[in-house]
Amino acid sequence: MDIPTFDDVLEAEERIAPYIHETPVLTSNYLNSLTGAAIFFKCENLQKAGAFKARGATNAVFGLDDAIAAKGVATHSSGNHAGALSYAAARRGIAATVVMPHTAPEVKKAAVRDYGGRIIECEPTQAAREAALQQVVAETGADPVHPYDDSRVIAGQATCMLELHRQVGNLDCVVAPVGGGGLISGISLALSKLSPQTQVYAAEPKAADDAWRSLQAGEIVLRDGQHSIADGLNTNLKPRTWHFVSSFVEGVLLASESEIIDAMYLTWQRMKIIIEPSSAVPLAAILKQRDRFRGKRIGVIITGGNVDLQNCPGCPRATEAR
Amino acid sequence: MDIPTFDDVLEAEERIAPYIHETPVLTSNYLNSLTGAAIFFKCENLQKAGAFKARGATNAVFGLDDAIAAKGVATHSSGNHAGALSYAAARRGIAATVVMPHTAPEVKKAAVRDYGGRIIECEPTQAAREAALQQVVAETGADPVHPYDDSRVIAGQATCMLELHRQVGNLDCVVAPVGGGGLISGISLALSKLSPQTQVYAAEPKAADDAWRSLQAGEIVLRDGQHSIADGLNTNLKPRTWHFVSSFVEGVLLASESEIIDAMYLTWQRMKIIIEPSSAVPLAAILKQRDRFRGKRIGVIITGGNVDLQNCPGCPRATEAR
Repeated sequence: MDIPTFDDVLEAEERIAPYIHETPVLTSNYLNSLTGAAIFFKCENLQKAGAFKARGATNAVFGLDDAIAAKGVATHSSGNHAGALSYAAARRGIAATVVMPHTAPEVKKAAVRDYGGRIIECEPTQAAREAALQQVVAETGADPVHPYDDSRVIAGQATCMLELHRQVGNLDCVVAPVGGGGLISGISLALSKLSPQTQVYAAEPKAADDAWRSLQAGEIVLRDGQHSIADGLNTNLKPRTWHFVSSFVEGVLLASESEIIDAMYLTWQRMKIIIEPSSAVPLAAILKQRDRFRGKRIGVIITGGNVDLQNCPGCPRATEAR
Repeated sequence: MDIPTFDDVLEAEERIAPYIHETPVLTSNYLNSLTGAAIFFKCENLQKAGAFKARGATNAVFGLDDAIAAKGVATHSSGNHAGALSYAAARRGIAATVVMPHTAPEVKKAAVRDYGGRIIECEPTQAAREAALQQVVAETGADPVHPYDDSRVIAGQATCMLELHRQVGNLDCVVAPVGGGGLISGISLALSKLSPQTQVYAAEPKAADDAWRSLQAGEIVLRDGQHSIADGLNTNLKPRTWHFVSSFVEGVLLASESEIIDAMYLTWQRMKIIIEPSSAVPLAAILKQRDRFRGKRIGVIITGGNVDLQNCPGCPRATEAR
């Protein structure tokens, strides 16, 4: 199993720079006074294709040599990686095929189509996804780019932490959502070199608490059947991301579904940015554990903004659509 | 009647710098391809107190000498200027009294209270506002800071254009909403020195088309009784802002209520930022007049993000609240 290195992260940053936004860092006096902390929100919802996933996907796509790239890329994804890979493939001018659970938010399917990607729908299980992807790869010879179990993807996601560190300097801790663990692995990798004393916390929905249970058990524990509104986080760790989670993550912080929804709307209302439910899990967790974070300089990764405004609980236009 | 100068704008920028965000400029490939233009969105919704109004209010408050400041400041405002003046007064440690129509959005009243401002409610007419303000000034000796008919305020708002020009260079045109005309005056003032060839367009709701009618008539025409969802724009020009509008504005672009709402949600969905209805009028107008803007480099001022998520047509959480 290959594990990305810090040099891979530096290479990724150079490779993806022409295709990626340096996203702004926002702060909110209101949320700082509410939490007693100094929170720096890294706004990857304002990233290309609306999520940090553009970083890893772009690194994978532009790292391919021409002969392999010519056969296209493929993946399975519950959403943002699908749009991101389609975006990156379109920029390189190659084909992208994406296996998506039929339950994926319409807005995330639309993003794939907008970038010219091809969607193959499947049942919303890990097994169904992986089987469908294998078939695509066998048929097309496309290079499979896993949404997180891929060193190129992890190195790409890590560039988000390089940027944040350059933008705000040292932090006491960084809190990011954990699903499959690609982002948290990238953050851990970047900080291991840049600022080893910075603590890394993973934030996870209670309804998808497999990373929390994995850390308790000391080995990867798979998800039970529950499904969180934080749709990007309904995935399992893999050995490659478990390597980083088990070695670097200080703890997993849990939040309930209603805490996630409240934190999401609080962010919309106060920070004037649209964030998707997954991105609200860190703030929900920080609000819940204020004592742990009081007085700290905290980096929070706002992972994406791909909310379907017509199909989100209590969400804009949902009234009209019903 | 005093008229602010470009030097006033430079002084304002220096004066307000410690209290104001340099707001980011965002772009959207999607909206660029939809319009055929290159649009640079200046995100004053991410400004302190959620609107560009913090600039002018801060310039007025911090320009007062200590003896006058000690008596506090007062204003009338339908919303964002109220919050902005309260914010600025709080930063200087002086009192702010705000006359607001009782119809002002709850979120804008809450902002005033959060910053420690005192609200006096009145009927939603210009006459009622002005009478109530006069009474406050007579009783307290507070310095009145008009939301737009004030040279200090216009010079402050102009700093937004200084920043945008520094951030993106020359533009073919700038489109900003017009209500009382403070922002459009500031933009005109800044561009008259920085880039006189850049065209200034004012965007206005059809339901509050007094600036459009004023330009047709060649003199200030007051609003009729209609009320636009773009609540910040239901105000009249004054001679001081008419000076700039009549001298510098290339044209007034109109948008219907439904076009404004559609442009607002399009921005939420695609750009991942919360903008208030007033801020959507420029994009609505550009979408309507694509031929005029195709191929142009356009600056658009996103004036604010203070939407009441619970009381906005088809808006988040409105379902639950009903």
